[in-house]
Amino acid sequence: MAGVSEATVSRVLNNVGPIREDTKRKVLEAAEILGYYPNALAQSFARRRSGNLGVILPYVPKVHIFSTYYFSEILNGIGEQVRGLGYDMLLIFRKPGVENGYMDLFRSHKVDACILLGTTDTPAERKALKALEEAGHPFCLVNQHFEGERFLEVDADHEQGAYEAVKHLLEEGYRKIAFLNGPPEYSNSLDRLKGYVRAMSEAGIINPAASLTEAIPPEWLDSGNYSRTSGYEAAKRFFRNKDHIDAVFAANDRMAIGLMQGFRDLGMHPGKDIAIVGCDDSDGARITDPPLTSVSVPFYQMGMMAAKLLLTDSVSEDHPKQDGGTGHQIQMSTKLVVRSSSRGNPA
Amino acid sequence: MAGVSEATVSRVLNNVGPIREDTKRKVLEAAEILGYYPNALAQSFARRRSGNLGVILPYVPKVHIFSTYYFSEILNGIGEQVRGLGYDMLLIFRKPGVENGYMDLFRSHKVDACILLGTTDTPAERKALKALEEAGHPFCLVNQHFEGERFLEVDADHEQGAYEAVKHLLEEGYRKIAFLNGPPEYSNSLDRLKGYVRAMSEAGIINPAASLTEAIPPEWLDSGNYSRTSGYEAAKRFFRNKDHIDAVFAANDRMAIGLMQGFRDLGMHPGKDIAIVGCDDSDGARITDPPLTSVSVPFYQMGMMAAKLLLTDSVSEDHPKQDGGTGHQIQMSTKLVVRSSSRGNPA
Repeated sequence: MAGVSEATVSRVLNNVGPIREDTKRKVLEAAEILGYYPNALAQSFARRRSGNLGVILPYVPKVHIFSTYYFSEILNGIGEQVRGLGYDMLLIFRKPGVENGYMDLFRSHKVDACILLGTTDTPAERKALKALEEAGHPFCLVNQHFEGERFLEVDADHEQGAYEAVKHLLEEGYRKIAFLNGPPEYSNSLDRLKGYVRAMSEAGIINPAASLTEAIPPEWLDSGNYSRTSGYEAAKRFFRNKDHIDAVFAANDRMAIGLMQGFRDLGMHPGKDIAIVGCDDSDGARITDPPLTSVSVPFYQMGMMAAKLLLTDSVSEDHPKQDGGTGHQIQMSTKLVVRSSSRGNPA
Repeated sequence: MAGVSEATVSRVLNNVGPIREDTKRKVLEAAEILGYYPNALAQSFARRRSGNLGVILPYVPKVHIFSTYYFSEILNGIGEQVRGLGYDMLLIFRKPGVENGYMDLFRSHKVDACILLGTTDTPAERKALKALEEAGHPFCLVNQHFEGERFLEVDADHEQGAYEAVKHLLEEGYRKIAFLNGPPEYSNSLDRLKGYVRAMSEAGIINPAASLTEAIPPEWLDSGNYSRTSGYEAAKRFFRNKDHIDAVFAANDRMAIGLMQGFRDLGMHPGKDIAIVGCDDSDGARITDPPLTSVSVPFYQMGMMAAKLLLTDSVSEDHPKQDGGTGHQIQMSTKLVVRSSSRGNPA
């Protein structure tokens, strides 16, 4: 109808290559009249492209994942980038450590690339990720490192973040600093433990030469599952040794807020009787009483970066070396935000 | 290789119809050995199904949409339902009121059905939705009503919610009650205004026979854009008439929290000098000082319901009549949660 070849029609409709303006107009007019509409599914099939960036989210029944600061900020960053690059975002819920069938998503061309959030370092997970890598399917992990692998990862420098948090407490005069860590399957739990040990060793409080179990008094080391409730419960355990503890560093804000509530219910005043520092610098940190000192982690930027790494070829100009990063593994800086929960007068 | 027909292979692999166990085993073993994997894209193409539920989200640059209670709770509900029904969730960002090309998503078979969040009542939006309806593409609106249309909608009873909020303030002894509404393009702004007027009329404070502009003193009616900042700014305007105002009902918690901060910065104590009531009953309402009285809206359930309506045939047994709903338009109940921001001692 436009009097041109099929190839020209295809080039016009896909906006590929140089085409004369009047040819373009003729083709578009004909398409308009005929009601022709490229079927994206057929196009995808031909091109083997879905136009979707997959995002794997951990599925835990009744947990409101979009309402947690950690996930929502990473998703905000991914969403901003994806929108800018003309992709859509396919959210896929998987039970962590149980359902690793990521390969199906690529095999079935539901996604062109995948960001995995909330993965844990288990043998099954490693195996699933290695299979993806071997098949050449592009994927990126956010905030999780798999030691010994060369997976594409966007992580934050949690060791340095923990180091600075504990150093701040030391500078404020606290010495008996306990650490409420997260579960060991998350790489940042080990990172934070390293930072804690480094700061405490430098201050001469623990013996850097001793093994961890010998160096750290057992009443100073505890762990929760990142929930507010687990922080609340930990406060009860710390309270039993309250004479041996004057500050607690928690691996996220939710647990820190739970600690504050738990200590308060036991008659201790957070910020006065005991210092508290969290991680994430979530919205909650600003509105607790007292406001919570916290390690700010650039989750939004990490989400943007992961999407950019997967969907574009160049990121290096935008991402200077000082933030670390070997190409495969990018590590972003954290920043301590000091508020009144850690500015008490330790005895 | 399994010695059976193509149709049988298809039935086994798609798990359709009764098949003898040994036939099934033979087919699956052959598929395993051959590395055969159904290509979901090819399957979708044949069946014209994507297995994706689309969710349209308003795109506003730099606004962290997943971090707002309203959207995150609706998405939590959709996610829970979608996961249960074996669908994935395709998130699509569109500039509200500008980009209405919803039809493309169906034409290109990217989605099987669509939930639209954050839509506004504009002529362009109505036109786009009517086109979808005429083409027979299944879609559902959440928390937005288009008067005069028969679109599938899951809404909350915002009129009753506002009525109960204002009635509570009246019962606490407040009489000079101002209302900070949201933008007029949202149907719930009109709903809440109706509830406010009903409560104030019943109390004999405003004249139900008069027109709105005559009945309500202008210093009692103001509006913001649902942001905390717009609430903060509104506090300054209300403050100029502070002798004529002893309580403010705000159309969401963010604006209510902004109001509290604004009044505090002007030397007034929320909960003492001025009562504040919000809407949404978000996490923020629990942690402000004083805690915020708020109208709880079942956003999570609304998200679940919208997904269920679109992806399954039956919802009526699960959704008893008392929550309203004509089949096309379901209206869920709200509930006032009273906290100390509205329990002062008005003069």
